[in-house]
Amino acid sequence: MSPQSEPREQSAVTVIGLGPMGRALAGAFLDAGVRTTVWNRTPGRDRELVERGAVSAPSAEEAVAASALTVVCVVNYDAVDAVLRRDAVAGALKGRTVVNLTADTPGRARSTAAWAAEHGVRYLDGAIMTPTVTIGTPGAVLIYSGPEDLYREHRPVLDALGGTHTHLGEKICRAAAYDIALLDIFWTAMAGFNHALAVARAEGITARELAPFAAGIGAILPAIFTEVAEEVDQKTFSAEGTPLTSTASTMAHVIHTSEAHGIDAGVMRAAEGLARQAIGLGHGEEGFHRVAELLGRRS
Amino acid sequence: MSPQSEPREQSAVTVIGLGPMGRALAGAFLDAGVRTTVWNRTPGRDRELVERGAVSAPSAEEAVAASALTVVCVVNYDAVDAVLRRDAVAGALKGRTVVNLTADTPGRARSTAAWAAEHGVRYLDGAIMTPTVTIGTPGAVLIYSGPEDLYREHRPVLDALGGTHTHLGEKICRAAAYDIALLDIFWTAMAGFNHALAVARAEGITARELAPFAAGIGAILPAIFTEVAEEVDQKTFSAEGTPLTSTASTMAHVIHTSEAHGIDAGVMRAAEGLARQAIGLGHGEEGFHRVAELLGRRS
Repeated sequence: MSPQSEPREQSAVTVIGLGPMGRALAGAFLDAGVRTTVWNRTPGRDRELVERGAVSAPSAEEAVAASALTVVCVVNYDAVDAVLRRDAVAGALKGRTVVNLTADTPGRARSTAAWAAEHGVRYLDGAIMTPTVTIGTPGAVLIYSGPEDLYREHRPVLDALGGTHTHLGEKICRAAAYDIALLDIFWTAMAGFNHALAVARAEGITARELAPFAAGIGAILPAIFTEVAEEVDQKTFSAEGTPLTSTASTMAHVIHTSEAHGIDAGVMRAAEGLARQAIGLGHGEEGFHRVAELLGRRS
Repeated sequence: MSPQSEPREQSAVTVIGLGPMGRALAGAFLDAGVRTTVWNRTPGRDRELVERGAVSAPSAEEAVAASALTVVCVVNYDAVDAVLRRDAVAGALKGRTVVNLTADTPGRARSTAAWAAEHGVRYLDGAIMTPTVTIGTPGAVLIYSGPEDLYREHRPVLDALGGTHTHLGEKICRAAAYDIALLDIFWTAMAGFNHALAVARAEGITARELAPFAAGIGAILPAIFTEVAEEVDQKTFSAEGTPLTSTASTMAHVIHTSEAHGIDAGVMRAAEGLARQAIGLGHGEEGFHRVAELLGRRS
């Protein structure tokens, strides 16, 4: 019996990688009654999962041989390669499916897909957009790219992870590209928030005092992102009362206040540089999102 | 009759500065039935307001003399000084109140308050946290600092601007400091979003395709800001599954993907530098908000 014809009701999955996210994934599969085999490079991470019914495999090749579907979630694609790109593992994976939920760059997703094709491994790339605590709950957000039939085939098992699953297209690097773009937004925003906490404290304002107003800023972002995205696709850059000249002036106030307290303002200085460049190119009366257009242009 | 004893039912306000925000403020006062006198340095901006019932003053000194309360909203405090710090205007303002809603640094707020005290001008500083379209609606958010009795006295007229009004304390620079911190968050997040749009486009993803996921990232920020703020005040920096080493690795992926497309990654490079510094100082297993603590420390 080939792995693909394994009956759906005896659904089984192998989870490679038992960091906090890998453990959350394996736990959600167990909770959903999926037969779950686990393996981690550093031993001893599977104890609690085994107590909950997981099968601990003695090697990566034995782990992937135990299920038609292997979900990989490790620190990056160097770690993926160290596990998968060995003859014994590649041989065991032949004809089986790997769903790689490890975060890395779109280029690494393309390279892994090429390796999988060479070795007869069926391959889907994916990314997890929400924290470990959301896994197995309606709050989980997972994205995938690669062959749609493969996605459809394994979706019933992947549904055990809870939340929203979206197939972004057949192009294998699409999930990684979305992931990178969304992490860009998240971590840049977090850098701004933590910098603001430092400036606020220097001005005698506690983090708790600033928090409700900061949350208010966060709350207006989804609608603004949506409006700006429409304009960027249409290559219109209306200022809506806040021209780039005014934004650059605001950014200069932030930098001045920060540096007057001896607080590094490198992040805002880089952002201000983008605004000043756009002004220098004659876009001073347009909105800040002209920067998205200029950044994309090869000089 | 001194200006202060002017009966409340004949409420009157002067608005100095008729840019998009100044016009929105004057319009909201007019809609609320407040007698509104307007003045702008560059003439011709008051036509529509006059049609709606505003009184156009021929000079700044005549404008401020027309009301017990003058609201100033111009481009920055250099522009405030150019209007207010003249003998004729200072004389006309003696015993009257200025509420300065112009955005600038906390230092400029302190300097303006000192000038006001010297000239017998009653002074409140403030900031508008929401776009012009919110003025006169429940969506407006305004913050103030300075003498609380002055705030209480003028609050009935200021309520015409709609939304939520918060007095942040007697320390005159407090509203400007909140404003700077919140603008820091907003514009850093917008820099991240626009950079992400450029990277996404280079990967064949349109802004409209990314937008719903970007909005999802925005939507989780308020709760995260609130949790992080609690920890920062308590000087605890738990990783919650995402240690600084992992954040720095994610940031490196963003930088690599961006630069592989020839897209400047200066904002994320600066943010990654903060993460790497914190790791270098031994905080690799802590959360990214350790950065807020380190930024605040004088080296």
